[in-house]
Amino acid sequence: MGGVVLRVGVIGGGQLARMMIPAAVRLGVELRVLAEAPGSSAALAATAVGDYRDAETVLDFARDVDVVTFDHEHVPQPVLAALVDAGVAVRPGPAALRHAQDKLQMRARLAELGAPQPDWAAVSSAAELEAFVAGHGGVAVVKTPRGGYDGKGVRVVRSAAEVEDWLAPGTALLAEERVGFVRELAQQIARRPSGQNAVYPLVESEQRDGVCAEVVAPAPRAGRVAQAAARVAVSIAEGLDVTGMLAVELFETDDERILVNELAMRPHNSGHWSIEGAVTDQFEQHLRAVLDLPLGSTQLRAPWTVMVNLLGGPMDGDLDRARRLALGDQPAAAVHIYGKDPRPGRKIGHVTAYGADLDDVAFVARAAAIAFSPS
Amino acid sequence: MGGVVLRVGVIGGGQLARMMIPAAVRLGVELRVLAEAPGSSAALAATAVGDYRDAETVLDFARDVDVVTFDHEHVPQPVLAALVDAGVAVRPGPAALRHAQDKLQMRARLAELGAPQPDWAAVSSAAELEAFVAGHGGVAVVKTPRGGYDGKGVRVVRSAAEVEDWLAPGTALLAEERVGFVRELAQQIARRPSGQNAVYPLVESEQRDGVCAEVVAPAPRAGRVAQAAARVAVSIAEGLDVTGMLAVELFETDDERILVNELAMRPHNSGHWSIEGAVTDQFEQHLRAVLDLPLGSTQLRAPWTVMVNLLGGPMDGDLDRARRLALGDQPAAAVHIYGKDPRPGRKIGHVTAYGADLDDVAFVARAAAIAFSPS
Repeated sequence: MGGVVLRVGVIGGGQLARMMIPAAVRLGVELRVLAEAPGSSAALAATAVGDYRDAETVLDFARDVDVVTFDHEHVPQPVLAALVDAGVAVRPGPAALRHAQDKLQMRARLAELGAPQPDWAAVSSAAELEAFVAGHGGVAVVKTPRGGYDGKGVRVVRSAAEVEDWLAPGTALLAEERVGFVRELAQQIARRPSGQNAVYPLVESEQRDGVCAEVVAPAPRAGRVAQAAARVAVSIAEGLDVTGMLAVELFETDDERILVNELAMRPHNSGHWSIEGAVTDQFEQHLRAVLDLPLGSTQLRAPWTVMVNLLGGPMDGDLDRARRLALGDQPAAAVHIYGKDPRPGRKIGHVTAYGADLDDVAFVARAAAIAFSPS
Repeated sequence: MGGVVLRVGVIGGGQLARMMIPAAVRLGVELRVLAEAPGSSAALAATAVGDYRDAETVLDFARDVDVVTFDHEHVPQPVLAALVDAGVAVRPGPAALRHAQDKLQMRARLAELGAPQPDWAAVSSAAELEAFVAGHGGVAVVKTPRGGYDGKGVRVVRSAAEVEDWLAPGTALLAEERVGFVRELAQQIARRPSGQNAVYPLVESEQRDGVCAEVVAPAPRAGRVAQAAARVAVSIAEGLDVTGMLAVELFETDDERILVNELAMRPHNSGHWSIEGAVTDQFEQHLRAVLDLPLGSTQLRAPWTVMVNLLGGPMDGDLDRARRLALGDQPAAAVHIYGKDPRPGRKIGHVTAYGADLDDVAFVARAAAIAFSPS
């Protein structure tokens, strides 16, 4: 190669790493994936298989890459510290990443930044939780600070007894007010180390059972809320020194306020629409950002883009037949398959459609998704 | 995987195979590439390295794939026959492919189909060529029937002496009238074995020194010519039983006629614009077609799309710097790098831009390409 080929190491072999492959192919950079197991979603780019909790495995993987980034936020801080100590560029860095790893640290830091968020408290005992519940209308959302995703590690409770199994001496839980939101939104932003930001259009995300089901870009009737969301995302990206993609999941209240729900410091399900719907998709943008390359335009490519997740997979397990039906039924839909075995509730792919009329677009995306419906 | 994972084997590891990788990732099919050498443009998907002229190598590679297709048309007919004899699905099939391999066979078959083409003759001696030149205004375009590409194997001559080195006993050359064309066009079409066709918008292609330099989609002011081109492409795809993508390169004359110049039975440089510019790009369409999956929509995604080839590469050989400059200067341009060493005249990548105003779009694509300019 003329000069040096840039190499990005991705820890984790899920669909997010998989969807970085097309971006890397386009940009002419080399992607190397540390997968959990053979046959992962990102197997094509896997150069190593091993445990991301093991410092030696990760250090060995990170040799000869220009930057290490992530498919998920579960790499332990000591492993991240070992990478930094070894001189490896880690983006986002450990100090930023711990806010995506630990919801209590996130809440405390967002409070310092003055970001709008639900009332919250760290609770370490049944008594503390009961007091929080009593002070918030008799209900609270309780979250384990670490390891939760897609609705796991989250319970809506009216008494401490409902999280008895989570309450252990010396551990704190996050208690949040239950927000009366009218919808959920997601704001994405990219940030590169040398300081450039790229804000994406605000999107609406529909969750079902704690899992993202559909995303509409841009969020309909967003108005001032869109400006507020962009401001919040910039303030978090800057305040937490995030590099790469940052997704800020938001509640919109009935009085047009937004409250930060969750953070993710990587490409995110709420940004899959951007593959077809934005000039620069979140996967290419993430690679550009972590490599400190100039960021691309985040402009919409169509008035409306709708993304529908494929959850679980076809009833009969026959993905080949489902894909054939979907492609045949909706020739304008973009069908993305992740190379994962169908399993109840599992994200096995997504479908995207775009165009001038939101109802038409949503119809096309949903119609293509039907072929993959588990029931 | 649920059910069987479809596997496509591609013979040849060039940029066309490389650009099938994102499409395969999206569709959830497995791509396996037989590359000529390690470090090829499509190295990420290379499962074998070897000589495509060797039947044993190719047969071994083709084991366990659902269909074999191509990055180029140079696989010898005996090797293709061996694949077919072994029960391998080869698409396009050998009978179709020989018309892309041998320009004399192409001319003869197009004549049978009644497709519009330049006057031509097979010439086996200096005397035959002199007679053809004399009958066509004192000039002829002489082509070696096999192995030519990107202007190689083509000479404009006024006397047989100019191709003395090509004239050997027992070999025939193709002599064609020199067409007074006003521009070059390319018509792409996909065809799947079960019979579905998908016609792309006609595009204008600007060649420099026999190599594609720029493509504009759709071809400006095409009018009736676009309909004629689509008809010709359908007739050739059907008449030659092509499966996969077919590119028909055309001359447009000053009296609005079109004449077939060349055929390619694979994704083609004149179709790279479709990655951003069409609902279904030529690489995904080719995979769908050779797998006999339903074809995708070929509709335009923008009023205008312009593709500019990156030929040769940056003067100083520093691709990393050139990419950084291009991305920084034109954040709305799509920059595609092929992972090939810069070398004079070599296709090392391409840039695409799209939008509502053709002049703006062409400016963006050309401005991004400047960073890669060899001088």
